[in-house]
Amino acid sequence: MFQLSLGTRLRRSPYFEATVADGVTAFSTYNRMLMPTAYGDPMAEYWRIIEGVSMWDVAVERQVEISGPDAARLAQILTPRNIARCKVGQGKYVPICNHAGVLINDPILLKLAEDRFWFSIADRDFEDFAAAVAAERGLNVTVFEPDVAPLAVQGPKAEDVIANLFGDWTREIRHFWFRETSLDGIPVVLARSGWSKQGGFEIYLIDPARGGELWAKVKEAGRPHGIGPGAPNQMERIESGLLSFGADTDRATNPFEVRMGAYTTRGLGPEVIGAAALDRIATKGPTRHQLGVVLEGATPLSSNIDWLPVRRENRMIGSVTSSVWSPRMKATIGLALVASAAAAGDEVMVEGPDGVVAARLCELPFL
Amino acid sequence: MFQLSLGTRLRRSPYFEATVADGVTAFSTYNRMLMPTAYGDPMAEYWRIIEGVSMWDVAVERQVEISGPDAARLAQILTPRNIARCKVGQGKYVPICNHAGVLINDPILLKLAEDRFWFSIADRDFEDFAAAVAAERGLNVTVFEPDVAPLAVQGPKAEDVIANLFGDWTREIRHFWFRETSLDGIPVVLARSGWSKQGGFEIYLIDPARGGELWAKVKEAGRPHGIGPGAPNQMERIESGLLSFGADTDRATNPFEVRMGAYTTRGLGPEVIGAAALDRIATKGPTRHQLGVVLEGATPLSSNIDWLPVRRENRMIGSVTSSVWSPRMKATIGLALVASAAAAGDEVMVEGPDGVVAARLCELPFL
Repeated sequence: MFQLSLGTRLRRSPYFEATVADGVTAFSTYNRMLMPTAYGDPMAEYWRIIEGVSMWDVAVERQVEISGPDAARLAQILTPRNIARCKVGQGKYVPICNHAGVLINDPILLKLAEDRFWFSIADRDFEDFAAAVAAERGLNVTVFEPDVAPLAVQGPKAEDVIANLFGDWTREIRHFWFRETSLDGIPVVLARSGWSKQGGFEIYLIDPARGGELWAKVKEAGRPHGIGPGAPNQMERIESGLLSFGADTDRATNPFEVRMGAYTTRGLGPEVIGAAALDRIATKGPTRHQLGVVLEGATPLSSNIDWLPVRRENRMIGSVTSSVWSPRMKATIGLALVASAAAAGDEVMVEGPDGVVAARLCELPFL
Repeated sequence: MFQLSLGTRLRRSPYFEATVADGVTAFSTYNRMLMPTAYGDPMAEYWRIIEGVSMWDVAVERQVEISGPDAARLAQILTPRNIARCKVGQGKYVPICNHAGVLINDPILLKLAEDRFWFSIADRDFEDFAAAVAAERGLNVTVFEPDVAPLAVQGPKAEDVIANLFGDWTREIRHFWFRETSLDGIPVVLARSGWSKQGGFEIYLIDPARGGELWAKVKEAGRPHGIGPGAPNQMERIESGLLSFGADTDRATNPFEVRMGAYTTRGLGPEVIGAAALDRIATKGPTRHQLGVVLEGATPLSSNIDWLPVRRENRMIGSVTSSVWSPRMKATIGLALVASAAAAGDEVMVEGPDGVVAARLCELPFL
């Protein structure tokens, strides 16, 4: 266990004081901001997401806004998924690739207006890349990071909490759709989204001065439902097979390798960055793919800081990229990036921090 | 004090085990890697840099390598400092700006060959930006991040330690110059550089499998000089007026505002990104500049996590962007980004975490 050193280089969130008051004990960093990761009771935090409702400070999920006459054109240039039919008020999970087809981000794209988009990004700078492409192509757009701070409300009871706060109309919001609205004068974008498979919403706070106020209102509305603080949960997200960009990807990963092929479109043409490279990879077939892995033994691994080598019949076939103890499966499970020849059902050996462990590959998600 | 949550998203350095064995107690993150920041005795770590010699795991200082027939052309496109006269074996401190002239990185550029460069970057992704520009302009280059891990040896006795390890020829290396060499077969680039003003070297380890070995050799060679582990030191770097990109800059900062104007060149022409914007800013004059600030009172501030508002005659003129207790000045000192009209000698008020504090602006560096 190590301390995290604080300073002005790692920004804090508008919810920081509220999370400290609610007992946050650990942080990670994400997009050079502090992200709460634990409140001292990991099992309670887990079950709250699975069976109840949890509130998360995910202000680290930064927005890169693109607006102006060429915004729609640039948005399409930046993702190899066809977004022509994306409606205002709709979100889409979009891969971002470099010119070689390597995945460099996996944001949710929110179409706020015909000429205004947010890319709600993973942990890698996207603003400089997007702005460079816009400038190099002479497009008439503005690219910047607005100070917008998402607060996630996740779990099977999240809908009741959100309906209580915003009204019953919110029950009709479809997955990844959103609406600009306000809560007692606090301007927000409310979306049905979030980094869990237990259902829920993300409240994108537009005015960072009102973080404490919004946190308190959500907490109050959730009280009858047993809401408590939490954070993006490694146990739940691995059980659910959710990708963590940067944890489960390396500097050569393309979308096909991590089950994002369906979010790419063939034949988008030369204007779209990475599209031609992905067309070629689709024809040849990717050399790696992502599967689940279940380790034998009833003891969690002592560390999950490194990719763990995976061997099949004594040959190296890839790595476990994230692993965790699953409370519901009562086993150590992980995501594995392995050679395309490897398949669900294969028996493998994983080089763990405490020695070699027998394991079996499987389809995702686990649950 | 908060814990840092570990996982595979935040990579560790090749020196990680060695730093743990040597008692590291805290980390920050930088370029999505773990950076040791403390070994449990801040004053000993400080005086070691000022009076002796300290060894730092700065593997987080990532290299972006550009190589190929168009590498020299791309390197110049990427920085608004004229690098035409940079020799092979020479390093240069170069601002990187976006097309609008905003500072987006402040690396050391190392010219390894006429067609091969490293940008030794600050805490912001540069690879995607550089690769995008290369691809958009159709340049014949390769852009990637090699797994190179700098180990800094800093302090007045660093030269003796390095001479002991590599030979007396190293005493002749000029500031920012470097040489590719090896240490008992460990391939490294040895440079006279480092993020302190106390003198020293950086050993860029080329083979990450040999981190523990290199750490042990440096430790052994430094033993007669009282070497000990340390880290980039906030007290020393603020006393010395060194910029921390991302801590002392915001999303509008240009090089003139943070004393980097001398590292930019006028009239570089339209091919160089940001050059035209900087020419315009140079003509008009920047609206902000960086000064030092000395706070009254003999008590360190309770927190240094936020930019602190600075007022002069009751008008907001800027912010203290980093602050620290200076052991040699026996005062809280900081770097301030303030309106150009503000000058050294001005009396100001700083809104600290514990209330408003009287302070005085001054020239940099402090020492």
